[in-house]
Amino acid sequence: MVRGRISRLSVRDVRFPTSLGGHGADAMHTDPDYSAAYVVIETDAEDGIKGCGITFTLGKGTEVVVCAVNALAHHVLNKDLKDIVGDFRGFYRQLTSDGQLRWPVWKLLVDMDPRMLVSCIDFRYITDVLTEEDALEILQKGQIGKKEREKQMLAQGYPAYTTSCAWLGYSDDTLKQLCAQALKDGWTRFKVKVGADLQDDMRRCQIIRDMIGPEKTLMMDANQRWDVPEAVEWMSKLAKFKPLWIEEPTSPDDILGHATISKALVPLGIGIATGEQCHNRVIFKQLLQAKALQFLQIDSCRLGSVNENLSVLLMAKKFEIPVCPHAGGVGLCELVQHLIIFDYISVSASLENRVCEYVDHLHEHFKYPVMIQRASYMPPKDPGYSTEMKEESVKKHQYPDGEVWKKLLPAQEN
Amino acid sequence: MVRGRISRLSVRDVRFPTSLGGHGADAMHTDPDYSAAYVVIETDAEDGIKGCGITFTLGKGTEVVVCAVNALAHHVLNKDLKDIVGDFRGFYRQLTSDGQLRWPVWKLLVDMDPRMLVSCIDFRYITDVLTEEDALEILQKGQIGKKEREKQMLAQGYPAYTTSCAWLGYSDDTLKQLCAQALKDGWTRFKVKVGADLQDDMRRCQIIRDMIGPEKTLMMDANQRWDVPEAVEWMSKLAKFKPLWIEEPTSPDDILGHATISKALVPLGIGIATGEQCHNRVIFKQLLQAKALQFLQIDSCRLGSVNENLSVLLMAKKFEIPVCPHAGGVGLCELVQHLIIFDYISVSASLENRVCEYVDHLHEHFKYPVMIQRASYMPPKDPGYSTEMKEESVKKHQYPDGEVWKKLLPAQEN
Repeated sequence: MVRGRISRLSVRDVRFPTSLGGHGADAMHTDPDYSAAYVVIETDAEDGIKGCGITFTLGKGTEVVVCAVNALAHHVLNKDLKDIVGDFRGFYRQLTSDGQLRWPVWKLLVDMDPRMLVSCIDFRYITDVLTEEDALEILQKGQIGKKEREKQMLAQGYPAYTTSCAWLGYSDDTLKQLCAQALKDGWTRFKVKVGADLQDDMRRCQIIRDMIGPEKTLMMDANQRWDVPEAVEWMSKLAKFKPLWIEEPTSPDDILGHATISKALVPLGIGIATGEQCHNRVIFKQLLQAKALQFLQIDSCRLGSVNENLSVLLMAKKFEIPVCPHAGGVGLCELVQHLIIFDYISVSASLENRVCEYVDHLHEHFKYPVMIQRASYMPPKDPGYSTEMKEESVKKHQYPDGEVWKKLLPAQEN
Repeated sequence: MVRGRISRLSVRDVRFPTSLGGHGADAMHTDPDYSAAYVVIETDAEDGIKGCGITFTLGKGTEVVVCAVNALAHHVLNKDLKDIVGDFRGFYRQLTSDGQLRWPVWKLLVDMDPRMLVSCIDFRYITDVLTEEDALEILQKGQIGKKEREKQMLAQGYPAYTTSCAWLGYSDDTLKQLCAQALKDGWTRFKVKVGADLQDDMRRCQIIRDMIGPEKTLMMDANQRWDVPEAVEWMSKLAKFKPLWIEEPTSPDDILGHATISKALVPLGIGIATGEQCHNRVIFKQLLQAKALQFLQIDSCRLGSVNENLSVLLMAKKFEIPVCPHAGGVGLCELVQHLIIFDYISVSASLENRVCEYVDHLHEHFKYPVMIQRASYMPPKDPGYSTEMKEESVKKHQYPDGEVWKKLLPAQEN
């Protein structure tokens, strides 16, 4: 049993100047500095148990997230750990946050009794699509073959695709070089950023399709660049490169727009992928109801907590839509691997058309970075949600006083 | 021509302890302290022109809004006023904020050339429903009879309804007393909060319907309390009290849910009203596309800026859905009256089924408070968006150091 109280919460603004190398650039975000609000929670427990959490941002505005964390801190401070563990749903309703525990999160979820799992979920607003009974039934079915799937995950990992070759900020030469290296490393699925300029897209897609050949998988990502009719028109022209999906073709809030685009593009063999900017389960519910997507992309930071993601995984299962998580940024790979490994072992029980995003940046700053083998995520075995950063990295990148920013800020214009 | 640069921006956290009197309580918000992040922008112009802005909050978390304002301040500081006025859309895209000018805002909008108005709007993501050409056509049609409608507004004002009689925090006696007074004051449209307890709702609706008689208008507001099937069931039982609308029956993000509820309740004579929590034009677009509402409730603070509201007013006109703004809170009445008066004069040209919310709290803190005559909003004639607060009120309510909070905080438990 967990003992102790939460005795301290600290939050820091940590920024990595990724824009300097053009990393992460897409049609909408031309100069992101991948950053995070980094939270450490300490307890007075005898074993010194502590927890870490991050949320990913693009640099500017991280101070607002830090401020928001501080605004919520009073819900957490002095809380008895067993009260939290004893009523996850209640704690969640109060806070929309997540508990950090001694197991890796995926293993905690996998071993949790289906009733306990269901008790973590807030069903308000989704009962027209998923009731508590539906959820329980799905999870109970998920118990069948669970042990074998866990063994399989531990041996082979969860299939991944790479987004690291084809950012919009890269030259054709860099693209070719990274793509060649990725093929050598065993990658079989590749994502390319599109949407800024059609001729440019045609050329870059041709390069990458030529390099990977007709059998390997290509995904495209427009990062919300288009209006609805524009998305259909543009993608009709890129259809010849046989993308598995087009990701975020328009506003992430436009459920009906995605449905329209989906209706037009599915006959061309292109699925719609979206979700990284969906802010709650109600949006995902509607995307599923409206047949607006063929690939559902959860995000470990955009949705408030593990709990909210659980409800989405279960709804996706009910609609038989594959979940293909969004990752990258700072720590998103570290976080979301837990959710998708749980999804496979306990919910979906399928790898068909399923794949988790991978981006190769910034893992070196984490104490327990993701481990990729044969283009797959190997299940983490260290405690928690894999969010703990190296203290040295935090210190160096703390904004605006860390060594990195102290050096950079005077050199920049504002 | 406007001359000068923005030389200073200050933002303050102002809170009114409204929860002490049960004011503003509803099914979801039991103890709101109506509050605002209050912004003052100063310029170096010779005439000392300045601007004020607020956003309404419920107390806790206002410090996060203050922080967000500070995070955006660098987009505003040192800006040349004529650059802003010369490219509203560009400034808006950059900031999602609004310019403060020397006319009352409604008059500025009414007198603006249709092309200039259209140039303020960001059409990204809504061209499948409203193009620049559509908007121009609507506004050009709106020029016909404009002068007469402006005169009519100045003489008679814009029709309002009152929400001040029937908060959930009030006893039956208070409800009766306030309702009697409102009838005496000439009010003909009344809103009652529902959704916490059905028996309680039945009793309170009976009281108010008995008092106002069968001819006057009754609206109901559930403040997002229900799941979709629950909303239909609950409102079927309240249908006998003949409400014009049920407001926010479920999650404000649930477009398809609102469509389902609408389909079930419209045959019972009950319309669906929603919008006060819709965060952008894309959500409104879909509510209209999905026939999810019969009354569209814009909010002057939830949507980022006047500009974003313009796009919603024009879409509502295209779908022939009446706009009935949300108001109340701190300063929302002051703000939104500008938008709805503009809507009547230049866009909708109709008062049928249209009415603007009114709540009688906190107007005394504003330098140019709303003026209600014969249950109508009389058009403001003072410059700006009517957001300037009395300096004394700001000082007294500044959080946590103002006189009011200094007195209250030690008395409260946390």
